[in-house]
Amino acid sequence: MDIDLILKDGYTIPITSKPRKLTIAIDEGRIIDLGDKKTIKNKYSGKEIDASRKIVLPGLINTHSHIPMTLLRGLADDLPLKTWLEDYIWPAEANLEATDIYRGAMLGCMELIKNGITCFNDMYFHMEQVAEVVKETGLRANLSYGMVTKNKEGNEIEEELREGVSFAERYQGQADGKITTSLAPHSPSTCSKSFLEETREKARGRIQIHLSETEEEFEEIHSKHGMTPVQYLDEIGLLSPDLLAAHSVHLANKDLGLLHQNQVKVSHNPSSNMKLASGAAPVQDMIDYGLTVSLGTDGAASNNCLNIFREMKTAALLQKIKNGDPTSLKARDALKMATINGASSLGLEDEIGSIEEGKKADIILLNGNESTLNPRYDIVSNLVYSANGSEVTDVLVDGEIIMRENSLLTLDEREVLKRTEKSSKKIRSKVIE
Amino acid sequence: MDIDLILKDGYTIPITSKPRKLTIAIDEGRIIDLGDKKTIKNKYSGKEIDASRKIVLPGLINTHSHIPMTLLRGLADDLPLKTWLEDYIWPAEANLEATDIYRGAMLGCMELIKNGITCFNDMYFHMEQVAEVVKETGLRANLSYGMVTKNKEGNEIEEELREGVSFAERYQGQADGKITTSLAPHSPSTCSKSFLEETREKARGRIQIHLSETEEEFEEIHSKHGMTPVQYLDEIGLLSPDLLAAHSVHLANKDLGLLHQNQVKVSHNPSSNMKLASGAAPVQDMIDYGLTVSLGTDGAASNNCLNIFREMKTAALLQKIKNGDPTSLKARDALKMATINGASSLGLEDEIGSIEEGKKADIILLNGNESTLNPRYDIVSNLVYSANGSEVTDVLVDGEIIMRENSLLTLDEREVLKRTEKSSKKIRSKVIE
Repeated sequence: MDIDLILKDGYTIPITSKPRKLTIAIDEGRIIDLGDKKTIKNKYSGKEIDASRKIVLPGLINTHSHIPMTLLRGLADDLPLKTWLEDYIWPAEANLEATDIYRGAMLGCMELIKNGITCFNDMYFHMEQVAEVVKETGLRANLSYGMVTKNKEGNEIEEELREGVSFAERYQGQADGKITTSLAPHSPSTCSKSFLEETREKARGRIQIHLSETEEEFEEIHSKHGMTPVQYLDEIGLLSPDLLAAHSVHLANKDLGLLHQNQVKVSHNPSSNMKLASGAAPVQDMIDYGLTVSLGTDGAASNNCLNIFREMKTAALLQKIKNGDPTSLKARDALKMATINGASSLGLEDEIGSIEEGKKADIILLNGNESTLNPRYDIVSNLVYSANGSEVTDVLVDGEIIMRENSLLTLDEREVLKRTEKSSKKIRSKVIE
Repeated sequence: MDIDLILKDGYTIPITSKPRKLTIAIDEGRIIDLGDKKTIKNKYSGKEIDASRKIVLPGLINTHSHIPMTLLRGLADDLPLKTWLEDYIWPAEANLEATDIYRGAMLGCMELIKNGITCFNDMYFHMEQVAEVVKETGLRANLSYGMVTKNKEGNEIEEELREGVSFAERYQGQADGKITTSLAPHSPSTCSKSFLEETREKARGRIQIHLSETEEEFEEIHSKHGMTPVQYLDEIGLLSPDLLAAHSVHLANKDLGLLHQNQVKVSHNPSSNMKLASGAAPVQDMIDYGLTVSLGTDGAASNNCLNIFREMKTAALLQKIKNGDPTSLKARDALKMATINGASSLGLEDEIGSIEEGKKADIILLNGNESTLNPRYDIVSNLVYSANGSEVTDVLVDGEIIMRENSLLTLDEREVLKRTEKSSKKIRSKVIE
């Protein structure tokens, strides 16, 4: 049978089964078969990629980002949260036009691809620009317009929900199904109670929200409503298997039970939580409870890179020191967070997140000859604790090759940097100078 | 005047002065002049490297490593400290022969060079093998034989000191001065008091030691001697400006004062301390006290990579979350820790650690077009929070180019990996199978 692509003889970490040498048959965007080289080659013919010196992984999944903020990387760091937001981030955002959003998203997506991230979950504004970048680059994404009602009133609040719903409806399923959408009320402290209730009524699919990121938010909700942010969302009726809660750093004991009962998904963002001194989320406790926890980079203004390999290690290290226990958050669990748990968090567990027959061919290849991946006592340990993302050589999304031997096939790196510079000059002149 | 090399027009971060475009004149291993392109080109002629699209930094300095342990990377992770040491690391080390040490050190040095580390400070055994690797690769290093007296007696203890002193005397100044040496009593809990006293008597130069790495060590010394490990070394007379104390995680209030009074240097190893759940050293407090703190990777068995770019970010993030303050350990301070403070910690502050006239030409070039280094609001922030080391394209040590446009000039990557595999197979068969 003639098929689109054969990925030949790569040392494969399928996630849902044991690492081993596998040859993968890909057709019409999906993995249609996999097995030893001889068996697969006897059954299929087509274009071949020799992966015999590569490590083969499902594409990594970034479940919380604000990709256009890559344009603001390094604009302001090492500052108190209030100064950072009020003197730098908000003034910069006030100056972002659609073109700037496009350019920032393009720089961000370039970095995602290079680091082997094939799918990301984003929340920002001018999201049609982000959707355009997703289409051009060939990535997979769940996108949503971030809705805020703080300092807004009457018509403005209505307008916010209309924008969120309209974007979600228009873009759901675009790019041959590679784009999915959510509703995204920003957080319990930046959206009013009635607005959160209306969001719940309007939602036809997934919802994402920032939840209990900082102690300030926890205290604010607690003093206003006499309950934790998690309990508050429970009262509103927002806790559900379709909810993805980003951060979830500050939780009371009862909260873990509530999140688990309602099968809420959590996106852990360790670098951002450390950099902004938000705190250390109880990730090992969540895992012990049976919660589905995935990994996010957050925006580049608070990280400052978009690299899930680095988040895996940072997550593991942070749990170990938080719990005073070197056995906390093992490498295996960190790798699951970055792959299959990411897929579940976006409702895509039947489509992506592992290398299995029937799943979409979202696959990355790493150069097995990089020093960081040697010696090879334990490939999962090497991937989590030693790799830094630069080992990625090839990236496939939906069976389409978008990076081949370190060359980006869907965008022009120099052009992206040139355009980034134009927009960053504007931001610099408006915010810093 | 005809000179060896002109590094032309790179955007340079000299550390001891402001970042700016600079052209650097290099002759006989040293920076003999630097200034704008026109001035330098009028005064000198010679081989040129166009650095106009590069970021130029002094080579990074790794002040605590056990480089042969790169051979044990990934052998055992996520385990309780006792199991990790007793069931894996010690049995593996018992099987390491001189050839294995050479191969592990070679793999490690390959990784140091790729990540822009030009100088490292190492403590292990079979150190003549490490010295050989340092000579072959062209790196700079301070080396010492790690002396242990626990479970040894009589002649064995004498032999340990003889070995340490003999190695230090024989290798001091070798490789055209690129190799320096120290005495290295392993730690206050693995060396007896009389042995530490003898070490003090025999020392003619620098001393390095593991100090207060774990709570167990702190408690052991406290219950045996009624004082903290720092106070114990003070009583023995080991605290001095020539002492480099690795880790220094668990300190009493008085300890900071003692370290400062005696101008002891500290090597902070954040990834290792987190991975082994040793704790978070009070680095911002040390800096506020005026202590010289630098960065180390520790061995690859407890990190698991050898990357000072990553240690800079991890150090900054760890301080921010430890202190609940996003202004803790600023990017600027992290970069100083990785460069000029590293030099001071090895007594080499007049030779390396910054780009200045008269200093050794230990210089690295980074590809300024990597996405992680853009946009360019603040290059120091990008280097600390976004770069991952893979941006390094060229490495000079003592004026000699040892990596040029990502090609390693002093070693054969494939050969290094092939040999690593041989030794790792042996370790696997002896320890795991």
